[in-house]
Amino acid sequence: MAPSVVDVPTDTVSHLPLKLSANGDKTSGDHGSISKLELKDVARTDFVLRTFRCLIADLCEQFKGGHPGSAMGMAAIGVALWKYVMRYSPENPSFFNRDRFVLSNGHCCLWQYTFMHLVGYKNMTLDQLRSYHSDRTDSICPGHPEIEHEGIEVTTGPLGQGIANAVGMAIATKQLAATYNKPGFPVVDNTTWCMIGDACLQEGVGLEAISLAGHFRLNNLVVVYDNNQITCDGSVDLTNTEDVNAKMTACGWKVIDVLDGNHDVEGIVSALVEARASTDKPVFINIRTVIGIGSKVAGDAKAHGAAFGAEDVANIKRNAGFDPEKHFQISQEVYDYFAEIRSRGRNFEREWDDLVSAYGGSYPDLAKEFGHRVRGEFPEDWTRLIPRKEEFPTAPTASRKSAGLVCNRLAAKLSNFMVGTADLSPSVNMIWKGKTDFQHPDLRPTCGITGDYSGRYIHWGVREHAMAAISNGLAAYSKGTILPVTSSFFIFYIYAAPGIRMGALQRLQAIHIGTHDSIGTGEDGPTHQPVELAALYRAMPNLLYMRPCDSEEVAGAFVAALSARDTPSIISLSRQNLEQYPAHSSRDGVLRGAYPFIEDGEADVTLIGVGAEMAFAVRARDALRDRHGLRARVVSFPCQRLFDAQPRGYRAETLRYRGGAKAPPRVVVEAYAANGWERYADAGYSMSSFGHSLPGAAAYKYFGYDPELIASRVAAFVGEWKERGPDEFRGEFRDLNLGGVDH
Amino acid sequence: MAPSVVDVPTDTVSHLPLKLSANGDKTSGDHGSISKLELKDVARTDFVLRTFRCLIADLCEQFKGGHPGSAMGMAAIGVALWKYVMRYSPENPSFFNRDRFVLSNGHCCLWQYTFMHLVGYKNMTLDQLRSYHSDRTDSICPGHPEIEHEGIEVTTGPLGQGIANAVGMAIATKQLAATYNKPGFPVVDNTTWCMIGDACLQEGVGLEAISLAGHFRLNNLVVVYDNNQITCDGSVDLTNTEDVNAKMTACGWKVIDVLDGNHDVEGIVSALVEARASTDKPVFINIRTVIGIGSKVAGDAKAHGAAFGAEDVANIKRNAGFDPEKHFQISQEVYDYFAEIRSRGRNFEREWDDLVSAYGGSYPDLAKEFGHRVRGEFPEDWTRLIPRKEEFPTAPTASRKSAGLVCNRLAAKLSNFMVGTADLSPSVNMIWKGKTDFQHPDLRPTCGITGDYSGRYIHWGVREHAMAAISNGLAAYSKGTILPVTSSFFIFYIYAAPGIRMGALQRLQAIHIGTHDSIGTGEDGPTHQPVELAALYRAMPNLLYMRPCDSEEVAGAFVAALSARDTPSIISLSRQNLEQYPAHSSRDGVLRGAYPFIEDGEADVTLIGVGAEMAFAVRARDALRDRHGLRARVVSFPCQRLFDAQPRGYRAETLRYRGGAKAPPRVVVEAYAANGWERYADAGYSMSSFGHSLPGAAAYKYFGYDPELIASRVAAFVGEWKERGPDEFRGEFRDLNLGGVDH
Repeated sequence: MAPSVVDVPTDTVSHLPLKLSANGDKTSGDHGSISKLELKDVARTDFVLRTFRCLIADLCEQFKGGHPGSAMGMAAIGVALWKYVMRYSPENPSFFNRDRFVLSNGHCCLWQYTFMHLVGYKNMTLDQLRSYHSDRTDSICPGHPEIEHEGIEVTTGPLGQGIANAVGMAIATKQLAATYNKPGFPVVDNTTWCMIGDACLQEGVGLEAISLAGHFRLNNLVVVYDNNQITCDGSVDLTNTEDVNAKMTACGWKVIDVLDGNHDVEGIVSALVEARASTDKPVFINIRTVIGIGSKVAGDAKAHGAAFGAEDVANIKRNAGFDPEKHFQISQEVYDYFAEIRSRGRNFEREWDDLVSAYGGSYPDLAKEFGHRVRGEFPEDWTRLIPRKEEFPTAPTASRKSAGLVCNRLAAKLSNFMVGTADLSPSVNMIWKGKTDFQHPDLRPTCGITGDYSGRYIHWGVREHAMAAISNGLAAYSKGTILPVTSSFFIFYIYAAPGIRMGALQRLQAIHIGTHDSIGTGEDGPTHQPVELAALYRAMPNLLYMRPCDSEEVAGAFVAALSARDTPSIISLSRQNLEQYPAHSSRDGVLRGAYPFIEDGEADVTLIGVGAEMAFAVRARDALRDRHGLRARVVSFPCQRLFDAQPRGYRAETLRYRGGAKAPPRVVVEAYAANGWERYADAGYSMSSFGHSLPGAAAYKYFGYDPELIASRVAAFVGEWKERGPDEFRGEFRDLNLGGVDH
Repeated sequence: MAPSVVDVPTDTVSHLPLKLSANGDKTSGDHGSISKLELKDVARTDFVLRTFRCLIADLCEQFKGGHPGSAMGMAAIGVALWKYVMRYSPENPSFFNRDRFVLSNGHCCLWQYTFMHLVGYKNMTLDQLRSYHSDRTDSICPGHPEIEHEGIEVTTGPLGQGIANAVGMAIATKQLAATYNKPGFPVVDNTTWCMIGDACLQEGVGLEAISLAGHFRLNNLVVVYDNNQITCDGSVDLTNTEDVNAKMTACGWKVIDVLDGNHDVEGIVSALVEARASTDKPVFINIRTVIGIGSKVAGDAKAHGAAFGAEDVANIKRNAGFDPEKHFQISQEVYDYFAEIRSRGRNFEREWDDLVSAYGGSYPDLAKEFGHRVRGEFPEDWTRLIPRKEEFPTAPTASRKSAGLVCNRLAAKLSNFMVGTADLSPSVNMIWKGKTDFQHPDLRPTCGITGDYSGRYIHWGVREHAMAAISNGLAAYSKGTILPVTSSFFIFYIYAAPGIRMGALQRLQAIHIGTHDSIGTGEDGPTHQPVELAALYRAMPNLLYMRPCDSEEVAGAFVAALSARDTPSIISLSRQNLEQYPAHSSRDGVLRGAYPFIEDGEADVTLIGVGAEMAFAVRARDALRDRHGLRARVVSFPCQRLFDAQPRGYRAETLRYRGGAKAPPRVVVEAYAANGWERYADAGYSMSSFGHSLPGAAAYKYFGYDPELIASRVAAFVGEWKERGPDEFRGEFRDLNLGGVDH
């Protein structure tokens, strides 16, 4: 049953391609490289579609797994995108001004891999294609697309993430274009294309991102919806019967329908071209396809996530006019069909290189800065922008305020910074003097909102998850070009966690400012008081979770975060004022994760102070000395992961764990669950329950965070330790916090 | 500036109230108790509004904090709801068939507390009202509403949660009504009212819940939108310019506008009444209000989250016609205005009691079961429904399959169970024979979907966060009446984490089935392989995170989860087949958290096996014996929290940590980050990175999960331990997994 393809007049694509004007708005124009479109050649296109679908069936069948259905359903969309519309260069996948492509329905990665093979991505050989779902550790065809591999813009798979990433990439283009483009020099004018399935329209993060993209009027973003109406459970109607086009329109999107996405390559190309010409809205192309088209389970959930079986694969081939006995059939004709794309890509590169070169002649200073951005560089002297210790106030200061003192200077000077907040501007102190909001410039007359696309301050709205996921897109646009800085109350990073995880997994630098940490946040109560969330971020690979104890340590946390070019950071800060310890705290100490804060060679106990609770450790030390005749040293411990990276000798010395029975016991003082501290401490003064709605100081007291009480319980523990010997305590981390004074 | 209130004809509310027919659909009718509506008495209403707003200003001013703006803006909405429309009984807030009220914009709790005081909730005295934001530990007026306090249906605060909870409550009503109501006996027919602000329309979880409520056509759900267009950052236009009414309509909601929500109590009542009469859609009432109305910062973000200052509070009172020198002024007239509500509430209760009594006469069996449900009871013999050890297959079995064997029997028999999945029915094995989908019955003709409102299987769609948050609403509807069972891949419970946290905080029983745990899930790759997520759930207070190692332990996990009536559970399961250990595994052992699995009094080392990785521990034991001449005992450790609750003696004996230098070292074998295991082990064979896309067995191998390799590294560790003595290892948890064989 070969697909029937209608004759296609070439003039439907005659205005292709388009380019951006200097201000980022679109004007029609001619990029001069996609010249000989061959849409008329329907027979060849038909043959390519049939080849592609059989190939997908074979690739899933060999290891009896994978996701064949959507990949087959999306074949015509792929041809339209990869052959006719997208601007990219297969031989140089990271060409800066390339169109970005995001596969938000990442389980369909075989679709993308196969097109990458056909259009000539050098690394994507047929041998590699055949490694999909194999046990080959050298495979570049994992079960979901991964950013590590050339030609993949972002790692996707958890649904809804990719569409948010794509919004971030479109924002990046807008911001760079507004900053660097000049009349006649559209040095940044790429489009972002994002493929989604039904699920990305159900996931909250996708819905948040859609709403924000509409608000920002990102006309350089095109979302292509593979509308096959099938998810794992069956028909989408089982759980979603909304009017999706009306919903997208309400969110500020332009909607284009394509009724036959299985065969109508012309219709799809026409829609894509119309989408790229959108002047003031992101575009949603609703393309009807049939999942697993050509198979016996076409249109059924069974086509989604399993191979078809040998018999059906043979049928698919037979119906497509291929030999059912042969596998992985790609004739030279198919390669020829895509052959022009490599030279076209080289032309794109050359034109852009020429453009940037001429731009350098006309705008030398701007071009120099642009070059830094393209290479992902920070100004060399960025550490000098961070206040020196002497510049910080010595009076008690909330660490969220300290963070403002540090971050605002950086943000003002480093054009890489794009800073934003999930609707907590008055609380998180991330606004710098003279900041411009990132907004569509036309919002000004309609709403009285200030800002334009050159702005680097983003009002994310109450959308923490999208904030993190879109930031991944900002960071992935081109490595280092943009450093996203997000902010919210730390507890709401539990909403953002799936996005934070994806950033850590992809080695995307970002700085997340989580204020109001611990129970010290006070009256808002247990819903707003994180006690267990740090355990997640301390366990998450490739993430720095840092709790600085004062302004100097906040400075250190920013140094660590900016230096970690392949790692996201969370800087966890207090709402309330914190004692400042200029005689003890050290930004360099933060870089080592933990360091002696108040030393004592004869200490009976090591107290580990952390972040906002440092004052309890320091004051408990005084109380131990004054009331109990015990000597304590204090270690500041802002970051477990940085400490783990230190040499063993440094770690042993800092925590004094060598020396057998003579080593003093270590007690961590933190108003979080102890989980994870057992690696560094013998006992913990920690939280074993959720918090309580009380003013911050009263909340601490309620839960036993009182220097006298801490000292008395530590003293009892040290006494027992001395009496019974450390052996008796092995394997028995002691929870010293038995609750507050009054319970 | 006293609000101007127009004259209100009483006939606009003459068709109030309504009641449900037996099938849960609405028909007009007369409940016979709200009789004398006094909307004509505009002067009294006006006086109440003024009193209320001044009181809010005073209550925030006394401790210089809180959220006064929306509470003042929503005054008229409150009068409409609490005095005119909602069915409740202040003297018995947990009257079963009460209307549910959810304050999704939980920061406006003072608004709710104040109405609760005025209408006569006994515990909500003026003294208590004045404890808002105080340091009183006996306060029932925390900074966000908390379920612990009478009259509060759910704890809210993290935005978007409440609206999802409300959807759950509306589903609960539908399901109970479809199950128990009979003609003439609408024993369950309450409405759920949910108040939201701008943020709940931005948060992804809210958008997911809205979409699902529209799909389910929950006409018993009314969302009241306090549309003041202000969030912390300023105008909502900063970040959201979508057409909200059109969006809600596209999602299948009926939309009603109220243009003057500040004064037009009649208009609001009329809208609420129209909403309750909706026949086939949930209702969204878009009410325009002014935040902080009457204050100098009216309509400004400054009115959101801070007290107004003494001067402005005095102005507010002066303009409202009150003495600016007096505080907390509530005249008897105001109490009189609400006086009838208590007797009305008593009537509601009496009528319902009579109805249920008559129902018992007509439908004795059904009424008996209904009684159990109302009291939140499971059938006494539920443990007998769980397969005996002998009934499980002895061949290797995926624990997700074992879970199906257990849960399907329970779900079939226990009407409390409402089971669902986030679009992974084919993977999670939660479908029981004869299950009915929860669906609007009219979907059948339009989409060919089966099911009706009596169904207890929910297709959540790809909406993990809403699945958890809506389930909290199901559980909170009435304690124990519904036991929600959710399911997805374990990794996607990172999307659901904010909802899971709220369930744990509220002590709401639920069972979350997280399949495909660990790196054994295979080809889907690191995006789908949880390595750090367990650290969060092990640290989260009041949650059981359980990883059973075989079918018998799966049975134990269900016993633990069903027995924990105040605690949610996550049962974490394998995709891949697992060895069965009928000679060693024990369901009772699961209830103790950890237990000796293979004992050896002369062991050189204790291996801790966990969940899907148990086989590595058991096989490493063999290899230690055969290749290294070392004796190992094995402890199975499915749940840290259950273990922590055991007596110290049991814990010491199980882990053999007493005995000083002679106690054997303990090594945990798990393919997760080690964080948290340091409390129970001296070393870990754990993951220190994200996973890799390979078939499950190959992924394990890639990361060094190989019995021979584990044994050799454990043997080296034990040798070192014996040679150097345990003191040398104190404070230095040893990571034994140095990576797979080939790296």
